[in-house]
Amino acid sequence: MSEVYATRRARLKDRCQAGGSHSALITRPANVRYLAGAAPKDAVLLIGRTEDVLVCTGPPDDRPAEGRPDEALRVHNLPRAEGDAAVAAADLAGGQRAESLAVEEHHLTVARYRAIGSVAPRLRLTELGGAVEQLRVVKDEEEISCLRIGAEIADQALGELLESILVGRTERHLALELERRLVDHGADGPAFPTSVATGPNSGRRAHRPTDRRVEEGDFLSVCLGATYRGYRCEIGRTFVIGTSPADWQIELYDLVFAAQRAGRESLAPGAAYRDVDRAARQVLDSAGHAEGLLPLTGHGVGLEIDEDPQLAPAAMGKLDACVPVTVEPGVHLPGRGGVRIDDTLVVRPEADGGPELLTITTKELLAL
Amino acid sequence: MSEVYATRRARLKDRCQAGGSHSALITRPANVRYLAGAAPKDAVLLIGRTEDVLVCTGPPDDRPAEGRPDEALRVHNLPRAEGDAAVAAADLAGGQRAESLAVEEHHLTVARYRAIGSVAPRLRLTELGGAVEQLRVVKDEEEISCLRIGAEIADQALGELLESILVGRTERHLALELERRLVDHGADGPAFPTSVATGPNSGRRAHRPTDRRVEEGDFLSVCLGATYRGYRCEIGRTFVIGTSPADWQIELYDLVFAAQRAGRESLAPGAAYRDVDRAARQVLDSAGHAEGLLPLTGHGVGLEIDEDPQLAPAAMGKLDACVPVTVEPGVHLPGRGGVRIDDTLVVRPEADGGPELLTITTKELLAL
Repeated sequence: MSEVYATRRARLKDRCQAGGSHSALITRPANVRYLAGAAPKDAVLLIGRTEDVLVCTGPPDDRPAEGRPDEALRVHNLPRAEGDAAVAAADLAGGQRAESLAVEEHHLTVARYRAIGSVAPRLRLTELGGAVEQLRVVKDEEEISCLRIGAEIADQALGELLESILVGRTERHLALELERRLVDHGADGPAFPTSVATGPNSGRRAHRPTDRRVEEGDFLSVCLGATYRGYRCEIGRTFVIGTSPADWQIELYDLVFAAQRAGRESLAPGAAYRDVDRAARQVLDSAGHAEGLLPLTGHGVGLEIDEDPQLAPAAMGKLDACVPVTVEPGVHLPGRGGVRIDDTLVVRPEADGGPELLTITTKELLAL
Repeated sequence: MSEVYATRRARLKDRCQAGGSHSALITRPANVRYLAGAAPKDAVLLIGRTEDVLVCTGPPDDRPAEGRPDEALRVHNLPRAEGDAAVAAADLAGGQRAESLAVEEHHLTVARYRAIGSVAPRLRLTELGGAVEQLRVVKDEEEISCLRIGAEIADQALGELLESILVGRTERHLALELERRLVDHGADGPAFPTSVATGPNSGRRAHRPTDRRVEEGDFLSVCLGATYRGYRCEIGRTFVIGTSPADWQIELYDLVFAAQRAGRESLAPGAAYRDVDRAARQVLDSAGHAEGLLPLTGHGVGLEIDEDPQLAPAAMGKLDACVPVTVEPGVHLPGRGGVRIDDTLVVRPEADGGPELLTITTKELLAL
């Protein structure tokens, strides 16, 4: 496994050198994790001129759940509570006679930036931008396999919930129950706060569960995901409670289903992000739901639940093979509720069978 | 309630003006929450020259669990996905003819700082520092009451767990069970990831639960807390599993208990942070446990679980009345396990009965 991380670091170093920097300071936790294998909280990574170093603070027994850092990396433990890891890393970079250091300006705070400037005044600080985030977009099969297992876990947890009695239980209890099941089935934890929304709350993205209880005739929308070895997936489904959905419910469900299918079917290597978004969005737009639609209909997943790319009207760029994304259009009618359907899929070429669906729970409208 | 927030904002404005700035941009979420009452994710607060404005992004239905922002505040909703709230707020500050804007350099990223500089080039950016964090240190009785209720909830959850069978269950299951019970008893959620540590893991601060099962003869250390209306408390206890603790377990427990009591008893208005730390630390030091001690023996709690003050050897400052802190010394013996005892208390003057203990679960060594 160690080679994977060394290769990633080498690719980043190539990019830095092309940009004129011989060293880089990685502070964003998911980026550190991507390049170092695993890292304690608050660790930073120096991609050095002569050597790469993982700089850690805090007690050495504060190890991450997912294992130990790449053994090929030198680990520098700062004495307890003495100083900032980023500042120490910049100091090490200076010691390696680097002239410039590329930093993640979208993550580094102004205060840390100034502290680096004063400890290493000869180091020219340049902007690394989202270079690591860009490397992270296309996943290798090892990463996809973690996402696939996470999706299986989420499918299992959701499937079990559907077999239980739902009427009378609160959103908060159902969400906790799902999170417990995720862990029971081997997840590191939930990938994000589980959302359970009933009745008028249904169909709202990232709805925080309340004490509202499930009632007959409700829409029930659920969005959950598992973290497995650090990788996060997402599934969302909407159900109806009781024996016979109302006409408006069937109509709305069919509409969102059609939008979600259009989004899924447009996933292909070379497809523009905005075209995938448009495929899903125009189904809802043309049915009169343009107002209140969310700014995106999907996004990348991986070490973070919301990564590049964004599938949104103004997004620039095209999909590659092996990019996992969500497709998650929804409609929420204020006061009445709504529908959201959300899958995680991996972009694959037509020759390999097209997009690979990781979250396989049925998307029929189930009446529970 | 609205007056509370207006008063807090007025106090901050006084500080800014004393520092030469007529406006301030608050970006750190707990600080926004403190001054605005409640705020959606990613909202920022402009303390303006002529008017205070809460700038929100994202769909208006993405409301926080704990309620609505202070009604006395103007709320400016940015059109969806269009730009950054901090940049929009700086633009508003410029529109109010402010000449300077104090920003939270310890929270603001370099990228946002630059973006503010380019949208409002005439605005001189100054450093607000930890001014809001300093205001937050001393709590009012409303805030303390939220902490008190949170502590009761955590006591209840812990008490119920102790009545159940523990041998054979994993750390992860016990932690999930505790979190479910917190929510059952009315918590918004856990205040931080619940830590359950058994056998050789016991006594480690912030240990992440593993699949290790509780065994006869283990130390079991548990650290949990409830969030109640945004306020976070903390309790930690260590138990022994089985009928008769070993001699080394009794000895270690008594030692940590003595250290924790010394820390608690030194809490008083006017006591130096470092003296409280030393009171607890020297008990452990003089018993030969100087190595491996953590950098702090306690910290403030409130809207965040780890706030000012830090009770640590190099900390500068003195306690005031109505400051809630943890006292949480511990010892971990590698390979064997250890003990940690953690309470949340509010500093009160002697005349009011001395420190108020919020977490009242017994600190006798229970054999379960």
